[in-house]
Amino acid sequence: MSFRVGVVGASGYTGAELLRLLAAHPGLEPVVVTSREFAGKDVASVYPNLVAYAGRSYDELDAGKLTDLDLVFMALPHGASMELGARIAEAGVRVVDLSADFRLEDPQAYPEWFGSAHTAPEWLGKWAYGLPELHRQEIVGGQAVANPGCYPTAALLALAPLVTGRLIDPATIVISAASGVSGAGRGLSPGVHFANVDASFKAYTVTGHKHTPEIEQELSRLAGEQVHVSFVPHLVPMPRGLLATCFAELAPGADLDAVSQAPATFYASEPFVRATHAPPETKYTLGSNACHVWATADVRTGRAIAIAAIDNLGKGAAGQAIQNANLMLGLPETLGLTAEGVFP
Amino acid sequence: MSFRVGVVGASGYTGAELLRLLAAHPGLEPVVVTSREFAGKDVASVYPNLVAYAGRSYDELDAGKLTDLDLVFMALPHGASMELGARIAEAGVRVVDLSADFRLEDPQAYPEWFGSAHTAPEWLGKWAYGLPELHRQEIVGGQAVANPGCYPTAALLALAPLVTGRLIDPATIVISAASGVSGAGRGLSPGVHFANVDASFKAYTVTGHKHTPEIEQELSRLAGEQVHVSFVPHLVPMPRGLLATCFAELAPGADLDAVSQAPATFYASEPFVRATHAPPETKYTLGSNACHVWATADVRTGRAIAIAAIDNLGKGAAGQAIQNANLMLGLPETLGLTAEGVFP
Amino acid sequence: MSFRVGVVGASGYTGAELLRLLAAHPGLEPVVVTSREFAGKDVASVYPNLVAYAGRSYDELDAGKLTDLDLVFMALPHGASMELGARIAEAGVRVVDLSADFRLEDPQAYPEWFGSAHTAPEWLGKWAYGLPELHRQEIVGGQAVANPGCYPTAALLALAPLVTGRLIDPATIVISAASGVSGAGRGLSPGVHFANVDASFKAYTVTGHKHTPEIEQELSRLAGEQVHVSFVPHLVPMPRGLLATCFAELAPGADLDAVSQAPATFYASEPFVRATHAPPETKYTLGSNACHVWATADVRTGRAIAIAAIDNLGKGAAGQAIQNANLMLGLPETLGLTAEGVFP
Amino acid sequence: MSFRVGVVGASGYTGAELLRLLAAHPGLEPVVVTSREFAGKDVASVYPNLVAYAGRSYDELDAGKLTDLDLVFMALPHGASMELGARIAEAGVRVVDLSADFRLEDPQAYPEWFGSAHTAPEWLGKWAYGLPELHRQEIVGGQAVANPGCYPTAALLALAPLVTGRLIDPATIVISAASGVSGAGRGLSPGVHFANVDASFKAYTVTGHKHTPEIEQELSRLAGEQVHVSFVPHLVPMPRGLLATCFAELAPGADLDAVSQAPATFYASEPFVRATHAPPETKYTLGSNACHVWATADVRTGRAIAIAAIDNLGKGAAGQAIQNANLMLGLPETLGLTAEGVFP
Repeated sequence: MSFRVGVVGASGYTGAELLRLLAAHPGLEPVVVTSREFAGKDVASVYPNLVAYAGRSYDELDAGKLTDLDLVFMALPHGASMELGARIAEAGVRVVDLSADFRLEDPQAYPEWFGSAHTAPEWLGKWAYGLPELHRQEIVGGQAVANPGCYPTAALLALAPLVTGRLIDPATIVISAASGVSGAGRGLSPGVHFANVDASFKAYTVTGHKHTPEIEQELSRLAGEQVHVSFVPHLVPMPRGLLATCFAELAPGADLDAVSQAPATFYASEPFVRATHAPPETKYTLGSNACHVWATADVRTGRAIAIAAIDNLGKGAAGQAIQNANLMLGLPETLGLTAEGVFP
Repeated sequence: MSFRVGVVGASGYTGAELLRLLAAHPGLEPVVVTSREFAGKDVASVYPNLVAYAGRSYDELDAGKLTDLDLVFMALPHGASMELGARIAEAGVRVVDLSADFRLEDPQAYPEWFGSAHTAPEWLGKWAYGLPELHRQEIVGGQAVANPGCYPTAALLALAPLVTGRLIDPATIVISAASGVSGAGRGLSPGVHFANVDASFKAYTVTGHKHTPEIEQELSRLAGEQVHVSFVPHLVPMPRGLLATCFAELAPGADLDAVSQAPATFYASEPFVRATHAPPETKYTLGSNACHVWATADVRTGRAIAIAAIDNLGKGAAGQAIQNANLMLGLPETLGLTAEGVFP
Repeated sequence: MSFRVGVVGASGYTGAELLRLLAAHPGLEPVVVTSREFAGKDVASVYPNLVAYAGRSYDELDAGKLTDLDLVFMALPHGASMELGARIAEAGVRVVDLSADFRLEDPQAYPEWFGSAHTAPEWLGKWAYGLPELHRQEIVGGQAVANPGCYPTAALLALAPLVTGRLIDPATIVISAASGVSGAGRGLSPGVHFANVDASFKAYTVTGHKHTPEIEQELSRLAGEQVHVSFVPHLVPMPRGLLATCFAELAPGADLDAVSQAPATFYASEPFVRATHAPPETKYTLGSNACHVWATADVRTGRAIAIAAIDNLGKGAAGQAIQNANLMLGLPETLGLTAEGVFP
Repeated sequence: MSFRVGVVGASGYTGAELLRLLAAHPGLEPVVVTSREFAGKDVASVYPNLVAYAGRSYDELDAGKLTDLDLVFMALPHGASMELGARIAEAGVRVVDLSADFRLEDPQAYPEWFGSAHTAPEWLGKWAYGLPELHRQEIVGGQAVANPGCYPTAALLALAPLVTGRLIDPATIVISAASGVSGAGRGLSPGVHFANVDASFKAYTVTGHKHTPEIEQELSRLAGEQVHVSFVPHLVPMPRGLLATCFAELAPGADLDAVSQAPATFYASEPFVRATHAPPETKYTLGSNACHVWATADVRTGRAIAIAAIDNLGKGAAGQAIQNANLMLGLPETLGLTAEGVFP
């Protein structure tokens, strides 16, 4: 017996990854899969990899049909989930939103970082922040979960052991991160043209990336104080994969070994987060829900460096959404997911 | 209850892909995983993607421990399986060999194409050729299966519908194929150095690739006559994926529509082979056991063109080996396998 | 003292490569550089690599200003050059057109392959076909040159020695070619999105590529008979580079050594075409005007295989256009060009 | 009339890039080109892109033949230049060493960072540090120049305007940098296998990269105080290109506009360093001697971010070596070099 779920926005990269994972999930049955652009078209003609969906068409979005489901995944562009997310939540249906629309507690953050006010501010702070390794209690049995962004997932999993362990000074955090091109979504622009991107590397939105307030909100919770970070994302000529390299000054008197052992200790019982013996490589997580974490203390400079690798569409999006759904529905947390990346 | 299996040569790319697939296979338990190079080393330290094997070491190869198993996968370099394969087969243990050592019926082919005589020629012709779509009957319940090469898998799946349907003249076949770099194996050479390979495209072993006699043997069986083909492989700057583009003159009076419909008709009930509406792209098969096939007739030139795409480590190696094992052991053919590629 | 030249359509990839080459050319001065899309914008803001053009804006296209020049390069989309090309040619100004608009002699070919009739058919056959290795006499001192397509350049340079030497049967030619993504131009489509293209390989326009009639026209000239070819292009996940792998049956009695030696003999005095000792790799030609050619005879199958590698934007477009301009203007053929590719 | 130069170690990637640049240089004639591995072999057979060297063999290294030259480029592995470099310098011959062997003033740095003592410590501090934008006076007419490392070139060019202008606190510098795979050299290791590297991103030598003391030495000179930096390099799946993203706290009272304008002001008269309007992308510098620099101040976090992009084999190695040679020999600084990258 499977739970009946819907995927709203199932033709973006994140939505398509959800469909791929659901095709192999024994406990979740995708009964509604919507796409504004491709409604009526065969899913497998849009994504020929999704052969399990051959003969099945994308649905039009009909909010009425969603409230009948056990759980709804929303994979819409930022801003587009506010109204629908509120409506589904009000209807008492379980919902995992993969956009940023319900991740931030502070309504002010939306005009500041996203350019316009939130239209359902009364819901902010009521959705669980769906990073199970930090918020499992709120997610288990929860009704509304805001699935974290890809950069926050990696940065927070890298930094949480050090911040929680008071091993670094949270006021000094610098995050230099890099993502594969799928992070930019399916939309077309010169910045995703293969000939422009391949064999190149660059930083983008150097001081204004929309994931910044999300990282700061969660680090502030962990640190118990207001934290601001410098966060610079880069674009790597690869389809998937995300690495966050985090720097911070060691807390006075911090034990150096404690820094390097922090990930293994902190994540000892986590099924998807692995402490690695060497700096992690994104490729080992490809197609999986794994996160690989590593840290070191540099006595010469007095800084700690913590690094995490994920698949931005896996633990950074669709994989984590399934993990959250499993927890919300009382299924085994790892059901339908894998920690083994496709390599090479 | 699982069957107990072994993987001999589990540290090459093909062996590692077998381990990845076995980690998620509910009916096969890898109880022996050998590596000459890494015996005693943690599997997950050699392949950090294989986190399911953390804490487990590669075994030394001990032939005596293999005959106790339900099935042995051999993923050794060409030539290295002859003796061991014969020994395992003699012991009555089921075996799937992923090398070329038992694929060819004609003992002469070994000195001609591989440079030295076969050391167990009495076994040639007694192993089933493990392409289930063409040899399922011999594989089901079989004891010894020679898993096809990656290029032959794609070329044969592309051409079988046309040759079987007498739609092309088998004497005129030209195969231009291309593979990702993992096809060259884990070994180091200037030809696999990233800086040399990336952003480049080339042909190699233009008239002498070792997969040629295998393609010809199987096409000859299908055609009922001796077939020779021109087969030129190319190297694509990508880790995985293989495409075979096949040309042949249309048979006199061949129906043009029959050519384009041949793949859909021929593979209608196959779980892993899909006829596509457009020329297939390798990426849609990444990490899966899928093969995408497409064909067309060009009335202007009087030729048919048939194209097949696979993951060279999936349907072209480890995936197909699992498919064969499932059939040999009486398990559902698709158990532990997927047809959904990782995309993008 | 430099000749004054114009580049019409200088913001496409081909136009930008022309600008890059002209920046280093001691005999050609780009005094007009037009772009419909970017007129008035700084060239170096559109193409930050073109720092020599910093402070200079793209011009609006003004046909009147072109007739004042010594030579005009036209790098417009196919179809857009017909009218303007005829006008410039009528004005007696030297012109090199990089589109297909003046490459074909047969007016019928345009509706058949390009979908609409030629609007200046009186000019067809009067433009020299700008492949200097085959048509140098017509180009030297010529006024109007149709610069060859990228695929025809490679295919013809691979096959010319064999066809001219009567070493193959021209009725049996099959061309399997592959290009980097810049060949698709700057325009945006899902087919050029990095996440879709990277790590994938596919065929496209399998029986209907627009370069087919051009290849057939020139092979027919060389063979002295009407030639039809099967030509299948593929897309390689790399920005630049093009390889043509050509198959044909050996002519009766053809000398096998003559086949492998044909490229070296045929191109002995050519400054840009090199016969290589191994199958050529596209990367060795990156950024240059070089073409690397190799051929072999396969006695087992009775076929010859000839392969050529170029940079599709170099010898396949802008480099060859400069080579033609040098010849038209009486400059040294190699001026401002290089045969040394950027490697690795 | 050309100066007669030698290239010692001309078969590594850096040496081969020197040969490519020398082939087009009107004032430098490579009369000795040595390779231990390929002595006696045709240069164009080892590097088929170097067609200008067809018919010419690599020379054995014979120190006696070097002292006869106008200038020697040494492109040997680190450590291998110490003895030979000292010998050439003693002979009064001009020399540009591309290794780290003469870059550091402090003899202690060699055992600390390179693992063994310097064998010619008397020469340390007497070689000019060959970053013309910071040390042009010492290089012009100089005899011995230590060509900078690739990472230091980018990091120093990014940071010099801010440090010199007292706009940042040099005690707080964090450098997150990333390089293409050619930076690892021609040598073979699993870490350069295409299948392992492609579609992946990772950090390496997180606290111990050999370029660290070089960066610190030069920043200390600029700052007038002892500077320590955190420097973490990453590997990008691309053949060439290097980006340095540098973070530092703004100096008290620093003018925010002065930060963003610092690169344009500082490099106003430099032929190869360009201040860009957007964060630089490595690809725009491919194959050239260009460096693109950009900076911004983030008032929210109180930090400045400065980014520089180069081709690691161009401005990061061979291109800069030619620039230095031009200055040493009294040639125009830009002779034989280009600032226009190959794009796309």
